[in-house]
This record gives sequence, structure tokens and C-alpha cells, in this order.
Amino acid sequence: MAPSFPFQSWQANPLSDWSIPVEKSFVGIVGMGTVGAGVARLLLDHGDRTARHAGRTLWLQHVVVRDVHKKRDVDLPAGVLTDDLDRLLNDRQVSLVALLVGGIEPARTIAVKILESGKDLVTANKALLAEHGPELFDRARDLGRSIAFEAAVAGGIPIITNLAQCLNANKILSVSGILNGTTNYIVSRMDRGQGDFASSLVQAQRLGFAEADPTMDIDGSDAAQKLAILAHLAFGAQVHWADIPRRGIEQLQVDDFRYAQQLGYRIKLIALAELTRSGLQLSVSPMLVKLGTPLAEVQDNFNAIRVVGDAVGPVFFHGQGAGQMPTASAVVADMIDTAVGRTKITFQTLKLWSDTAPSIEIAYPGDARARYYYRLNITDQSNVLAPVSEIMGRYGISIASVFQHDDDRSDSNVVPLVIMTHETTEQNAAAAFREINQLDFVHPAAQRLKVLNSTGG
Amino acid sequence: MAPSFPFQSWQANPLSDWSIPVEKSFVGIVGMGTVGAGVARLLLDHGDRTARHAGRTLWLQHVVVRDVHKKRDVDLPAGVLTDDLDRLLNDRQVSLVALLVGGIEPARTIAVKILESGKDLVTANKALLAEHGPELFDRARDLGRSIAFEAAVAGGIPIITNLAQCLNANKILSVSGILNGTTNYIVSRMDRGQGDFASSLVQAQRLGFAEADPTMDIDGSDAAQKLAILAHLAFGAQVHWADIPRRGIEQLQVDDFRYAQQLGYRIKLIALAELTRSGLQLSVSPMLVKLGTPLAEVQDNFNAIRVVGDAVGPVFFHGQGAGQMPTASAVVADMIDTAVGRTKITFQTLKLWSDTAPSIEIAYPGDARARYYYRLNITDQSNVLAPVSEIMGRYGISIASVFQHDDDRSDSNVVPLVIMTHETTEQNAAAAFREINQLDFVHPAAQRLKVLNSTGG
Repeated sequence: MAPSFPFQSWQANPLSDWSIPVEKSFVGIVGMGTVGAGVARLLLDHGDRTARHAGRTLWLQHVVVRDVHKKRDVDLPAGVLTDDLDRLLNDRQVSLVALLVGGIEPARTIAVKILESGKDLVTANKALLAEHGPELFDRARDLGRSIAFEAAVAGGIPIITNLAQCLNANKILSVSGILNGTTNYIVSRMDRGQGDFASSLVQAQRLGFAEADPTMDIDGSDAAQKLAILAHLAFGAQVHWADIPRRGIEQLQVDDFRYAQQLGYRIKLIALAELTRSGLQLSVSPMLVKLGTPLAEVQDNFNAIRVVGDAVGPVFFHGQGAGQMPTASAVVADMIDTAVGRTKITFQTLKLWSDTAPSIEIAYPGDARARYYYRLNITDQSNVLAPVSEIMGRYGISIASVFQHDDDRSDSNVVPLVIMTHETTEQNAAAAFREINQLDFVHPAAQRLKVLNSTGG
Repeated sequence: MAPSFPFQSWQANPLSDWSIPVEKSFVGIVGMGTVGAGVARLLLDHGDRTARHAGRTLWLQHVVVRDVHKKRDVDLPAGVLTDDLDRLLNDRQVSLVALLVGGIEPARTIAVKILESGKDLVTANKALLAEHGPELFDRARDLGRSIAFEAAVAGGIPIITNLAQCLNANKILSVSGILNGTTNYIVSRMDRGQGDFASSLVQAQRLGFAEADPTMDIDGSDAAQKLAILAHLAFGAQVHWADIPRRGIEQLQVDDFRYAQQLGYRIKLIALAELTRSGLQLSVSPMLVKLGTPLAEVQDNFNAIRVVGDAVGPVFFHGQGAGQMPTASAVVADMIDTAVGRTKITFQTLKLWSDTAPSIEIAYPGDARARYYYRLNITDQSNVLAPVSEIMGRYGISIASVFQHDDDRSDSNVVPLVIMTHETTEQNAAAAFREINQLDFVHPAAQRLKVLNSTGG
């Protein structure tokens, strides 16, 4: 008797070595860029994996693209490629769609149409979620559908599932992450003394780690979008990414990396969400991270996230934050979770970005407590420390260490003065720094950086 | 109208700040040792978390212990504590039980009874799974029940879910882990020059990182039991832990750590499962791990696991591998997954330890390929390298580097000779080492250690 297609079928290949009846879930993809091609390759070339791991094959039924004539680096079976979105939307066999189109529009319109056609959504589009998450999640709930988005944050690192599921027994105390591979490549290179910001950015672009317009990476916006998503999962924070205080890496100088090393630190662009007495502190900024701690050792274009839970303590995740196959790995994991029904459960129980869920209070950024690194460019003269420490004293800031590099003296008789403070507030650290910069022996382009607390953050 | 208890109820506390109707799942615990008390504390003191993360409260109905009069460091509500297992088994409201009793019996008998009473099982008992996993999983499948065991491997690190779910799109190429906190504490201390093996073991016992009888930790058995579970999840390997070649850390000497550092390595007890052309290579042994790579930086009693997938590349997890609250964090996450229905899906689709699943071929250990570290104790005389390299040449082993420490000369005119080889097979490395040890100028207590391949493994 023939098996009752399409729900049960025998597949000779690729399941020849594992000949049991395998169910099919029909799936679609919208967008066939780098990640889309990676997802298609995993589904087409490695159907045996989903059969083994999900008890079913994810059968790629439609791939919707704008231009069907464009050359692509993946061979799709005949009849799969189309420029007609309705063909996918109207196919009632298809239960889930991976939306792999970047940017806000038309991604947003397509996402809504997918949900309205009764299909579950999987997406890697972080900008879309950062801008329209609440609206899309509400729509999905109204329609009884789900949205999975593992690939939207930290690429191959399964941080969404780990926060949404694995660490559920914890009150999360902090999330600190290196969430942008472009900037981590640049600061790693600067830390190793291989170039300044400008030349490292050019090298990142040459290697494909940075886009032609890297503004959103460099200025911390990309990391802030990801942090907004993680902060919602970990703390229930309902915050728009643009409201997260952020600072990019453009102003970092090679000397700062050298001085940080001498103090026992590396400079990294850190996305930080930390529970404090006055609420949740959120920031994206270059910070000094203690050498020998896991985040300090994250090199080149890798991403990493440190989560501290009150029960589990610190847990650290490290992996490829972008790239075709790492991102495709996360998308296909989501497709499997959706096909087998895990996503539906998680989506329903977590009530993400829902009006009815309580939101945590966001703390005033000036109240954030940390140690600070100041690097001042001063005229080499006697008695500079007295007025500097007088100002700091007035703001209640005590100095942990000071050093002056006479060997870094430039022709103009200007030398760097590096100060590490004890813990103080962002507000006081900023105000004292401003005032110090007005002293007549202090030259422009001074630097002020926060130090990552190695226990809490 | 009153809510329809027990399925819907309003809870004033601990959900006062989040007043929505919350479903209850009634749960039980068998065993109230360290981990059991931690689990009870999370359930009793932090019911709001499971309400938020699972949309329901896990309601602790019964705690079964051998001696109800024993003093415990957690206050249980009246009527919960009992020494009557049947009270739990016969309570049809209870849908899942956390079995937190160590050792094989009576844990095995209780596990079967829990499944037969129609309840799902959550356990942290790694030895039980390592010995009776296939039998228990078959029984659970027959009865339509599930078993969750996140806490059985690497404590607070959610490696089971990450392998069973998050990395599903990958063909796993290797799993290399530091899976035993006791031994990692000891080797970390030896690496820092803080003591030899014996004194470090005493210190580990003093700090509670080692049990009174630490044999199973020290000789690699504990790590082998965990590796057998991970190898099944990652590769479908059906291997009994006692069949995994293993070597403990008893023979490591302080000097070996020093020489390894000079070569750019740290010595760690590594549990390794690696896909090779001749099948799956499995081993537990002290290995040289390249400084600066994530596994080398795992200090003290922490655990860590590096998984390499063909799509995702390397992913690294780091956290507390044992201890009351980290382990309880994993147990409660499993209880939530079971209560909401995720475990059932994963359990059914993965077919763990099932007869019908294909098993991967286990490779012959002698075929494993690696670089090797030899530390020989030789009489300080001329022309020792010629006979040594002649033997190695006969086994096709080429030497990558050699150094001799004249400053380590003992009174007896014996000096260490350290050799690092290029890649060769375990078989050849062992045979050459045996033959070299028979040379008349080579003294006893020589050392041979494998080097962890930093790309593949």
C-alpha cells in the first residue's frame, strides 16, 4: 500500500540508512540572499538531519525572490523559485515561512501577510523586531501563530533559546555581550597593535566583516537593537533600542588600548543590561574588560554573551555572530522548533512584547556605577595632579591609580596622563571629566571609558 | 465567579505584581539532599518565575525522603514531607517528579515506579543514565512518558538542550569538554604552581570541590559517564561509559604544567568526542590545550564545552558544573519544559537510546590522530637524541620541538627532556614511547600526553 502522502512517506534518499517513515513539514523562504541560500542548502542537502532531530523532513516548497533571473549560488529544485508571494501565501500545505529579507519594508508587510495567511514566522531580521516587535508579536498572538527569531541576535549562538527556556529558573542579574562582529574585529586588531581605527575598518571591509556603510555597527546602534531584544527576554524590559544610551568606537585611539593593557584590561564594545537598585541599567559603549575574564578573550569577528543568573551564577556563550552558515544554523533550528511545536509553546507562555506583561523600570543612566578610565593629554609641567584630584574629590571620586608616560612625549611637550578611578556614578564621572577638560593644561581629545564590573556585569 | 481550581486560580502572592490567572502544575521531589533542597527553594520562594516563564506555577505537592526527622536547610509547607513514596505515586494530580537521589539503587527502581505511575521524570542522576539509560528511555517511551536530564551533565550549563535542540541543523564534528570540576580545580591549581597533585586534592576536599572518595572524579570515570551521554546526543553513539578509553590526572607532575606553559599550553582533563574518517573517536585524558583558546582559560571548578558544528562552526559554553543552585537551575528548567510540554516533543522526536535509531561506528582508539608531548627523565650524557629520534623515525613520528632543562638537573644527574611531536596516531605514539622508555639512559616516570587539536577538537 502506498504511504498516505503528504503526511507519511518513505524516502529512499537521504534517509536510506535510516529507513523509517518520515513526516513532512512543508516550508517556504522569502529572500534568497546570503542567509537564505545557506538555509536552502541545509534544507536541500541535509534533509536527513531534520529527519533525525525533528522526526520529520522540512520540505522546501517555495522560495520567493524579487528577481527570479538573478544568479544564485544554490541549486533549487524546479518549480520552487518564484517572484509571486501569493503562491506561497495561498499554499495551505505550507505551515511555516522563514523571512530572510533585511530592512524594515517590505519585510514588515510580508511578515504580516505570512501571519495572516495562517503560517508561523521564522526570521533573522533584527531591525524589523527592534522597530516593530510589539506590533508583530501582538498580531501573531491574535492570529494564533508564532514568531521565532534565534538568528536575529548573535547569529550562531543560541542565546534566544537559552534565555527564553534554559535559564527560566533564574532571576537574571545581568547580560553583558559582545554583539557586533564588525566592531569586535576592529577593536581586536587595535588591541594587538595592528592598526588604528581607520585602517582596521578598511581591513574589516576588505574581509567582508564590515558593510560598505558600517555606520550602524560602528556607532553601537546594531548592538543596541540586539540588546533591546535580549533585555526584553531576560528582564521583561520594554525599551526601544534608540532609547538605550550608546557610544561607538570611532573615538578610540591605539594608545588607549596600550594603556588599558598596562592596567590589565582590554577595550571591547560591550552591550550591558544590569539589574541595579534603581532599576535596569542599559548601555552600549566601549569598556575596559579585565584580562583573563571570558569576554576579554573574545577575538576578531566572534560574538559572546555572559549571563548572570541568581541560581546558575555566570554562564558564558561564545561563537560566530554572523556569516552565512552560522546564521542559517540558527534559522533552521527555529524552523525545526516551529515544525515540531516547541516554538508555539514558548511563544504562548512567554507572552513576548505583550501589553499585559509587567515591564521593569529602566534606571536613570547617570546612576550607573562603575570604575572609570580617564586618559588626558596634558602639558608636561609640575603640579598637574593637584587641580585634577581636587575636581575629582569634589565629585566624591577617589583615584585608584595614575600613570604618566614621559616616553610618549610628543614634540609639542604634551604627555598622556592616565587615571583609573574607584567606583562612582556615571553622572559624577562625566561631570568631573568635563570640568577637568576645562583646565588650561589639559588638551583636547581626552578619553573617558567605563570599566566592566567583572563580578556583577 | 470563583476560578475553576485546580486548573485556574488567582494567587495573591507571589504574583501580586502580576495579577493574572495562573495555571498550576503539581510536582513532586524524591530526595532532599543538597540539590533537592535547592530545587525546593526555587519552587517555594520563587513561584513568580515559573509563572512568568511558563505561564503556570509549579506547585510542590510532595517531597519524599527516607528519614522525615532529619534536619534540612529548607522549610517545607506542612504536609509536603513524607517517607511514603506511594503517596506521591498515587497522587494523580502530580504530573511530574524530580528524582534527586544519587547512585543506582534505589534510584533505578524509583525511576521506573514514577514512570509507571503515569508521571514524567526529571533527574540529575548521571550515573543512573550512564548505566541504565537505554532501559529507562525505552520504558518511558512504552508508557508514553518523558525523561529530562539537563542537570546530569555540566550542572548549570544547558548543554543538553543546546545539543538536543539549538544545534539541530548541524552535523556535529566534535565535542570537547571540561566536564569535571574537581579535576579542573586540581589542574588549575597545579598550573598556577600552587601545589602538587596530592596537596591540591586535599585543598579541593577542604573547599567541598571533591568528595571524601574522589576516585571516580580523579580517574576520569565521572567525565566518561557525561561524555557517553553527550556523544549519544551529538552523534547518536551508543557506547557504555566504561568502554571509553580514559586516563586520570593522578600521574601529572608540577613540572609537566611548567613545560607545557613554555610550549604555549595548559594541561586540562579533556573529554573528547570527535568525528574522524574511521568513525567516532572517544577519550577522556589529560591533554595539552593551546593557551588563549577558550578551553585553556577555564579555571578552578568551572566546566566548559566546545561544540563544533559543520554549519555553526565552534560554539563554546562555560559555567558552574556543579553546586546546589546551578544544578537546581537546570532541574527547574527541565521541570518547566516538562510542565509546558516541550520535553514531551523533544523526547518523542529525538528517540534517545532507542533500538531503532542508527548508531555511529566507534573508531579504534589507536587510530586517533594528534600531536604528543613526551617528557623523559634522562641521564645527562651526550648523544641521547640520536637513539630517541631513531625510534620515533621508525614509527613515522617527526619531532616538532625538543628542549632539555639543565637547570632542572637533580643531584642524581637526571635531567628532563621534553619533546613535542608532529601529528601521528595514538598507536604509533604509544609504541614509540614504550620503546624509548626501554633505552638505558631513560629513567622511570616519563610522561606522554596528547595535544588537543585547536581547530578540529
